[in-house]
Amino acid sequence: MAGTDRARGMDGLAPAPAVVLVGTQLGENIGTTARAMLNFGLCDLRLVRPKCGWPNVKALAASSGASGVLNHVRLHDALGDAIADLHHLYATTARPRELTKPVLTPRAAASQMRTQVDAGRRVGILFGPERTGLANEELLLADAIVSVPLNPGYASLNIAQTVLLTGYEWFQSGTTVAPRQEPEGVIPATKGELAGLLDHLVAELDAIEFFRTPDRRASMVPTLQATFARAELATSEVQLLRGVVKDLARGGRRKRG
Amino acid sequence: MAGTDRARGMDGLAPAPAVVLVGTQLGENIGTTARAMLNFGLCDLRLVRPKCGWPNVKALAASSGASGVLNHVRLHDALGDAIADLHHLYATTARPRELTKPVLTPRAAASQMRTQVDAGRRVGILFGPERTGLANEELLLADAIVSVPLNPGYASLNIAQTVLLTGYEWFQSGTTVAPRQEPEGVIPATKGELAGLLDHLVAELDAIEFFRTPDRRASMVPTLQATFARAELATSEVQLLRGVVKDLARGGRRKRG
Repeated sequence: MAGTDRARGMDGLAPAPAVVLVGTQLGENIGTTARAMLNFGLCDLRLVRPKCGWPNVKALAASSGASGVLNHVRLHDALGDAIADLHHLYATTARPRELTKPVLTPRAAASQMRTQVDAGRRVGILFGPERTGLANEELLLADAIVSVPLNPGYASLNIAQTVLLTGYEWFQSGTTVAPRQEPEGVIPATKGELAGLLDHLVAELDAIEFFRTPDRRASMVPTLQATFARAELATSEVQLLRGVVKDLARGGRRKRG
Repeated sequence: MAGTDRARGMDGLAPAPAVVLVGTQLGENIGTTARAMLNFGLCDLRLVRPKCGWPNVKALAASSGASGVLNHVRLHDALGDAIADLHHLYATTARPRELTKPVLTPRAAASQMRTQVDAGRRVGILFGPERTGLANEELLLADAIVSVPLNPGYASLNIAQTVLLTGYEWFQSGTTVAPRQEPEGVIPATKGELAGLLDHLVAELDAIEFFRTPDRRASMVPTLQATFARAELATSEVQLLRGVVKDLARGGRRKRG
């Protein structure tokens, strides 16, 4: 299937956590979960007794082209079967109850999962039914609880949103440095070019007695200099600004003639 | 309204970035955006020419109780009006195009926004229409681009999902970021003040036919705009530069006499 539309986005994906949905009520939520997963390179989706039935046309309609994930779904009658091959299991819940389990943010959980997957372990993340969440005996199967920090006055995440945030943190955990992208082909101005721009502008301003007093000149020239420095100008931008200064200063003169 | 159902979850929210949606096509997406926002304590939603019309019943139906955010929506005809009071603007795009703007992950952007909001600045995040995203001239208004790192083989985030991830990072940043110290007494220019400076300069340049051809004008004006945006100008610096432009343009005229 690799490379076809049916499996779009699944080529060459690295090992990643499985997502296990228990007793899901709405097919849409399975579709949007598949979409959220594939954005972050997750493709192992397992369903335990979905109440909406399976296969499910609403799931496919809501998956926005992540049909490869749905086509590879594993269906289970018992949660124990769905997680039998996993080494580590994380359970998500909106209300961490009194359980003797560590409660982790998605970021802390992703960091642990990354370490485990890098060591060749199989990892899964467990989600309960929409209305009720996971039962206590299901939570007990997990090694740790994942809970998203939210506005205490309004906490309203659905399954796919929780999958999205968890998948995002998983994906982020694979890159240590946030790449800052520099625009290509931009040649930063040298200090000499910046000084040339400032000298040019100040000369034109002196010619029209812009500064009026030596004191004002002594405070305004450094301000202009600092402004140019902060702008991280490119060579081409220095040239443009020199053209602006030259033509603004000359414009009047040209009109004279 | 505080404490009532109409404003559920909005009590005691700390200052946070505004969300600005341009030309949104589907009311549902405004509702799910409000829901995503309120989960992470964002409540300032601004709509610019929503194609779906406003107010919108589908938005309310999709908001899952985040109606307080919808009740406080600000509606604008022009993007410039919607962002005029902001000091810093971030634009989201799936495809960072060739712009002279830094491209940030949501995490890096959240860290910057937190520093800015802690310093008393007003910050906004800009989202374009569902199908087309932001136009280049809209992207040019932003100080930086936010782009979510995704599976290169499958990138499919809708507006509310991008808001969710950005809001999540904003909320997370509240616990980790050390404040960057800003020089005292510097009042950063608003977007409205920057727009005024650019308009003034361009009018003077038009008066002397600086650009010569429409093509050159179309490429040079955005360059000037990007240069001003990058300089993080203070209000006092905008005033100084307006004085420079005015007097340079008039200087020649005065000499005429």
